[in-house]
Amino acid sequence: MFNIALFGAGRIGQVHAANINNHPETNLYSVIDPYLPGAQKLVDSYQAKIQSVEEAMLDPNVHGVCIGSATDTHANLIELAAVNGKIIFCEKPIDLELSRVRDCLSVVNEHKTPLLLGFNRRYDPQFRQLKKQLDMGNIGTAESLVITSRDPSPPPAEYSKVSGGMFRDMSVHDLDMTRFILGEDPVSITAHGSCMVDPAIGQAGDIDTGVIVLEFPSGAIATIINSRRSSYGYDQRVELHGQKGLLQAGNMKENLVQYWGDNGCISAKPHPFFLERYQEAFIAEWQHFTDVLAGRCEPECSGADGEAALVLAEAALESMNTGKTILL
Amino acid sequence: MFNIALFGAGRIGQVHAANINNHPETNLYSVIDPYLPGAQKLVDSYQAKIQSVEEAMLDPNVHGVCIGSATDTHANLIELAAVNGKIIFCEKPIDLELSRVRDCLSVVNEHKTPLLLGFNRRYDPQFRQLKKQLDMGNIGTAESLVITSRDPSPPPAEYSKVSGGMFRDMSVHDLDMTRFILGEDPVSITAHGSCMVDPAIGQAGDIDTGVIVLEFPSGAIATIINSRRSSYGYDQRVELHGQKGLLQAGNMKENLVQYWGDNGCISAKPHPFFLERYQEAFIAEWQHFTDVLAGRCEPECSGADGEAALVLAEAALESMNTGKTILL
Amino acid sequence: MFNIALFGAGRIGQVHAANINNHPETNLYSVIDPYLPGAQKLVDSYQAKIQSVEEAMLDPNVHGVCIGSATDTHANLIELAAVNGKIIFCEKPIDLELSRVRDCLSVVNEHKTPLLLGFNRRYDPQFRQLKKQLDMGNIGTAESLVITSRDPSPPPAEYSKVSGGMFRDMSVHDLDMTRFILGEDPVSITAHGSCMVDPAIGQAGDIDTGVIVLEFPSGAIATIINSRRSSYGYDQRVELHGQKGLLQAGNMKENLVQYWGDNGCISAKPHPFFLERYQEAFIAEWQHFTDVLAGRCEPECSGADGEAALVLAEAALESMNTGKTILL
Amino acid sequence: MFNIALFGAGRIGQVHAANINNHPETNLYSVIDPYLPGAQKLVDSYQAKIQSVEEAMLDPNVHGVCIGSATDTHANLIELAAVNGKIIFCEKPIDLELSRVRDCLSVVNEHKTPLLLGFNRRYDPQFRQLKKQLDMGNIGTAESLVITSRDPSPPPAEYSKVSGGMFRDMSVHDLDMTRFILGEDPVSITAHGSCMVDPAIGQAGDIDTGVIVLEFPSGAIATIINSRRSSYGYDQRVELHGQKGLLQAGNMKENLVQYWGDNGCISAKPHPFFLERYQEAFIAEWQHFTDVLAGRCEPECSGADGEAALVLAEAALESMNTGKTILL
Repeated sequence: MFNIALFGAGRIGQVHAANINNHPETNLYSVIDPYLPGAQKLVDSYQAKIQSVEEAMLDPNVHGVCIGSATDTHANLIELAAVNGKIIFCEKPIDLELSRVRDCLSVVNEHKTPLLLGFNRRYDPQFRQLKKQLDMGNIGTAESLVITSRDPSPPPAEYSKVSGGMFRDMSVHDLDMTRFILGEDPVSITAHGSCMVDPAIGQAGDIDTGVIVLEFPSGAIATIINSRRSSYGYDQRVELHGQKGLLQAGNMKENLVQYWGDNGCISAKPHPFFLERYQEAFIAEWQHFTDVLAGRCEPECSGADGEAALVLAEAALESMNTGKTILL
Repeated sequence: MFNIALFGAGRIGQVHAANINNHPETNLYSVIDPYLPGAQKLVDSYQAKIQSVEEAMLDPNVHGVCIGSATDTHANLIELAAVNGKIIFCEKPIDLELSRVRDCLSVVNEHKTPLLLGFNRRYDPQFRQLKKQLDMGNIGTAESLVITSRDPSPPPAEYSKVSGGMFRDMSVHDLDMTRFILGEDPVSITAHGSCMVDPAIGQAGDIDTGVIVLEFPSGAIATIINSRRSSYGYDQRVELHGQKGLLQAGNMKENLVQYWGDNGCISAKPHPFFLERYQEAFIAEWQHFTDVLAGRCEPECSGADGEAALVLAEAALESMNTGKTILL
Repeated sequence: MFNIALFGAGRIGQVHAANINNHPETNLYSVIDPYLPGAQKLVDSYQAKIQSVEEAMLDPNVHGVCIGSATDTHANLIELAAVNGKIIFCEKPIDLELSRVRDCLSVVNEHKTPLLLGFNRRYDPQFRQLKKQLDMGNIGTAESLVITSRDPSPPPAEYSKVSGGMFRDMSVHDLDMTRFILGEDPVSITAHGSCMVDPAIGQAGDIDTGVIVLEFPSGAIATIINSRRSSYGYDQRVELHGQKGLLQAGNMKENLVQYWGDNGCISAKPHPFFLERYQEAFIAEWQHFTDVLAGRCEPECSGADGEAALVLAEAALESMNTGKTILL
Repeated sequence: MFNIALFGAGRIGQVHAANINNHPETNLYSVIDPYLPGAQKLVDSYQAKIQSVEEAMLDPNVHGVCIGSATDTHANLIELAAVNGKIIFCEKPIDLELSRVRDCLSVVNEHKTPLLLGFNRRYDPQFRQLKKQLDMGNIGTAESLVITSRDPSPPPAEYSKVSGGMFRDMSVHDLDMTRFILGEDPVSITAHGSCMVDPAIGQAGDIDTGVIVLEFPSGAIATIINSRRSSYGYDQRVELHGQKGLLQAGNMKENLVQYWGDNGCISAKPHPFFLERYQEAFIAEWQHFTDVLAGRCEPECSGADGEAALVLAEAALESMNTGKTILL
C-alpha cells in the first residue's frame, strides 16, 4: 500500500482523492491545502490527515505525491518532491514559463525521481482504443489527424493572464495528443485565432476560437479545432485518417436514450465538462501512476512531454502573431 | 457506517463486495460462503472477516445482509435475517416455488423487516432515464413497450432444471421491467417459445427463444423478445411508444470508436454480459439499499415485486403449454 | 416500349405515372379514372390519353395494366385484364373478401396471365439488403424477426369498415413481410389489439394498436408491432436475429443533418409517410414489373401471396377475438 | 419545354442527360461530342439528335446549353453560347487559367447571358439543410467551419498537370463551399500539403493530402481537410460550429442496414463517389437551372463564384509554397 500526500483539495484534488482511496494499492495519507476547510473535508471523508508542505515532503511514510494545487506552485512542489525522493504525479502544466519548466526538470532528472505529468486525455479509454487500433495497423500509416476540442464556456477574461492564454492553457492538451497519437514530433506549426465568444477576452489579448495545423516528418498533418464555447457540452473528438481507413472517437453522451417526437430524434448532450468526460481517464491515469509507484513501469507521460507541449503552444502563439508557419 | 454481512463470494458477491466497500456509508463486515477460498479472498481484499450463517445472523454489529448465494438458500437466509432484524438485500429470485416465496414473505412481513429484491435492471441509469422521460410526460400515455433481452450464450442444458427454465430464470427480469416501466399490473399474458439454440435444452423440456405479450388495464401492450444466444454481446434494449413519441434505450457499446474501412463502418459490440452492462446499475442499486439502511426510504423493489414477477413467469409457461392467453 | 393503361389517378396512381414515364421501357399510354380532372392532369403531364375501362381492356396497344384504383374495383379489373391478356400490376389487396380473392385468382390462373401484386415493401432497398445478408448466410439460421410498423396518424373511424380493419388494411403488409423475409409459411398466429389512439375507432369495432406473433416450422418466431399513430413520422423497421448475428433496417430520416445544442443532439424525423419512405421501393417494384412485361422473369409477388397475407390477417382477427392461438 | 444542347457525352454528360429528360420542363434536344459512339448512345436513349458545335450554337430551337465536355473546351463554349444567346449551364471550372476565366466572363457579362456554374455541392440537400438551419439562426453566428473532403482514390499522376493540381481541381469545391455556407469572402488563406498516397503525384509536383485554413471578416475560421484517398468511399462531411450549437452533415451511407455480430456492429460505407453521393444534388441543380431558363430567378452560382474559387485555389498554392498566410 502506497501512502499518497495530496496537494490541493479543490475540484481536481477531490477527483484524485476518490481514485487514490478506491485503488487497492494506494492510500490517501495526507492532504495539503492552504484552504483548511477544503483539506479537512477530504481528510474526514477518507480518514487521512492534514499536513503542511514541509511535513509531507519530509515524512518517510509518504511514498508519492499527487500535485493538484494552483499552477504556480507546481514547479516548486515537484522540486521539493524530487529532492525528497517522493514519486511524483503532477497535473499539467509544470509551469507557464519554459525556462522555469526546464530548471524544474533538471532538478527532477538530477534526482532521477519518476515524474508522471497529468495529461489526462492520454488515458481516456476511447482515445486509447483509437491509438490501439492505429498501432495494430488497422488503418496503415497515419495521414491526417483532426482533434476537435471545445470547452463548454469561456473562463473570465482576467483568467487569460493567469492561464497564459488559450494555446498555453487549453490547446496544450491537444498539442500533446498529436504527439501521443502520431508518435512523432512535428516539424512545423501554424496557428490562427480569433475572438468570437467574449470581446473581453480579445481586449485581454487572448483568443477564444482557434485552429492549429502541425506538419510531421512522415508527411502526416494534424489539425486542432478549438473553441472556448460549446453550447452542447464538452466537445472532445479525435479522428485519424490513414492509408487503409478512418478512426473516429466521438463524444460520450450523458445517456443513451433517444426520444423520437414531433421535432425529430433527440439524444443527450455530451458530458458537461472534463470531470465527467474524463472520469475513466483519471482512474486509468491513477492506475498507471500506481504502476510507476510499484516500479512496474516508467512514466508514460514525462516532464519532457510537458516541456514539448509548452514549446508547441509558444510556437503557435508566435505563428498566430506573425502570420507565418514556424519551423521547429 | 453500516456493517454488511455478505452471503456468497461468487461472481455477483464480488460485485457487491466492491460496491459495499466503495460506498462511504457501508462497510464489508463479513463474508459467508461454504467455499472458504472464495470467502477468504474477499476477506483479504477488504479487511473483512469470515463468519458462519449463524454468527452473522446473531452478530449485533451486522446491520444489513447482502444475499448473493445460491438460489435455493435465498428464502432461508431471508427468513433468518428477518427474524434477527437485519435489513435485507437479496438477489432475485426469492425462490423458484411460488408457495415457498409466499411463506418467506409472510415471515418478512410479520417482522416488518425491509427487504430489497435485486432486480438490477430497475437501477440501470439508461432505463431510469427512459422511465424519467415517461414520467415527465414526454411521450404522453404509454402505448406499446418492447423489451429485447438476449443473453450472450445459453447455459448448459442441465441448468434448465435448476433454474426453473427460461421464463422463470431469464424472462422474469423482463417481466419485472414491464411492471416497473408501465407502473401497472398486466391483465393477460401470452407466451411462445422454441428451441433454436441448443437441442439439449429442448430435450430438457426448456426453450431458448421466446416471445411474451402482456396486456395492461390501460390498453398498453408489452412485448418481450428473448433469446439465450446473442453472438454480438449482451443485447439489452427497451423501447416505449406513447401518444406523443418514442423512447429508446439502446445497447451500451464496449467503446465508442468507429473504424471506417473497406468493409464499411465498424463499431464495438455491446458489453459482453451483465457484470459489465449493469455495472452502474449495481452501484445505483447499492446506493438505494444504503438509503433503505439509513431509513431514508422504503425499498423500491419489494418481495411482492419478486412474487409478482414469478406469478407472471409461471403464467407464461402455462400459456405456452396450452396455446391460450392466460387472464390474470 | 410497353404501353401501360393506368387505373386510378389518385395519390398512388400519380406515383406510378411518374415511374412509368421515367422508365426507359414503359410508356404511360392511358389513364382511366371516373374523376376526370384527376385523369386529365396526368394525361396532360405525360402526353397520355383518357380511356374508359372497356376501351383500355380491349385496346391491342395496351400491353400492361397498372391498377391503383379503389380497393373494391381491383378484383373486377384484374379479371378483365386477365381475360384480355394484359399483364397485370395491381396494388394490394385483391379484395377484402377471401372468397372473392379466390374466385379472381382462379380467373387469372385459368388465363395464365402474369399478375404482380404490389406489396411495395418487398422492393424497398433497405429490406432487400437485409434479406440479401440473410440469404448470404451472414446471420446463419433466422430465429426471431421483429417488424415495427406505425402509421403517422389514424384514418377516420369510418374508414375501418371500408378497410376491413387494422389487421386487413395495415398489418397485412407486415404479415406479407414475415413470409417474404423468412421464406416460410407460419404454423400459428396469435394477435392482440387495443384502442389507444382514437376511441371512435374502438366504437367502430376496430383497433389502433396491436401485436401479432407468428410461429414458423423452423422454430423461428416473428413479432409485429403495429400502431395507427406515430408522432415522429412513419416508423418502419425490421430486425432479424439469427444464429450468428442481428440485422437491423432502421428508419430513413428526412435528412442527415444533426444539430447539437442546449437540448442535446437533434436529428431529423423519419419520412412522413409511405410515398416518401418507399419512393425507391416503388421504382424498384416498377423495374420488376417491367422485367415481367418483357418476359425476363415471373412475378416475385403473386396473387397467391396476396391470398396468403389475407388468410393471416383473418386468422389474426380470429385469434384476437377468441384469445387463442390459431393453428394454420 | 426548353430544348437543351448537351456538350459532352461522358460520365457527367450522362447524368445530365437523364436529368434533362426526366425534368418536365426540359427536353434533351441534341448531343455534341467528338466521340460519336458516346453521343449516339445518348441520342438513342432519349430520342435526341447529334449536332456539331456550330449547329447547336446557331440552332434557334436550342434554348440552353449544358456544358459537360473536357475542361479546356469550357471557356470557348461559354463564349459561343453567350454570343448566341443560349442560357448556359457549365460544369466547373470555366478554365484553369485565371486570365482566361476573366476574359470569358467579360464576354458573358457583355452579352448579359445567364450563366450557372456547376458547383454541384451547393445543391446537395444535406448541405442545403445545414445552411438553412444556419440561416434560420439555429446556431447563431457561425464561428468555425470544418469541411472534410476525401476522394476514394487518386487520379493518375499525369492528371496533375491537366487538372492544375489538387487545390485547383479538388479543393476548389471546398473553397467554394466555405463562401457559400458562410456567405462571406475570406480575408486570408493558409495551406499545407503533403504527398502520402502516391509518390508519383509528388514527383509530378502535386500533393495528395492537404489542409487549408481561411479566415473571414467576421472572425469565423474555415478549415478544409483533403485527401486523394479514402479507403471507405467518398468522404464528404461538413460541420459548422456557432454561438448556439453545432451542425453536422455526415456521410450518406450506401444503405442503412446494420449487422451486429462477432466483430461488432457493421454498417455500410459511404457512397463510392460523386455520381452516387451527389445524385440528388445534380437533380436539384438542374431544377435550379430550369428556373433560370424560365426566368424565374438569377443563377445562384455565377461565373464570379467560379473566378473567386479559382483565386482562392491559387492563393492556397502560393501559401503552401511560401509557408506564409496569404492576405486576400
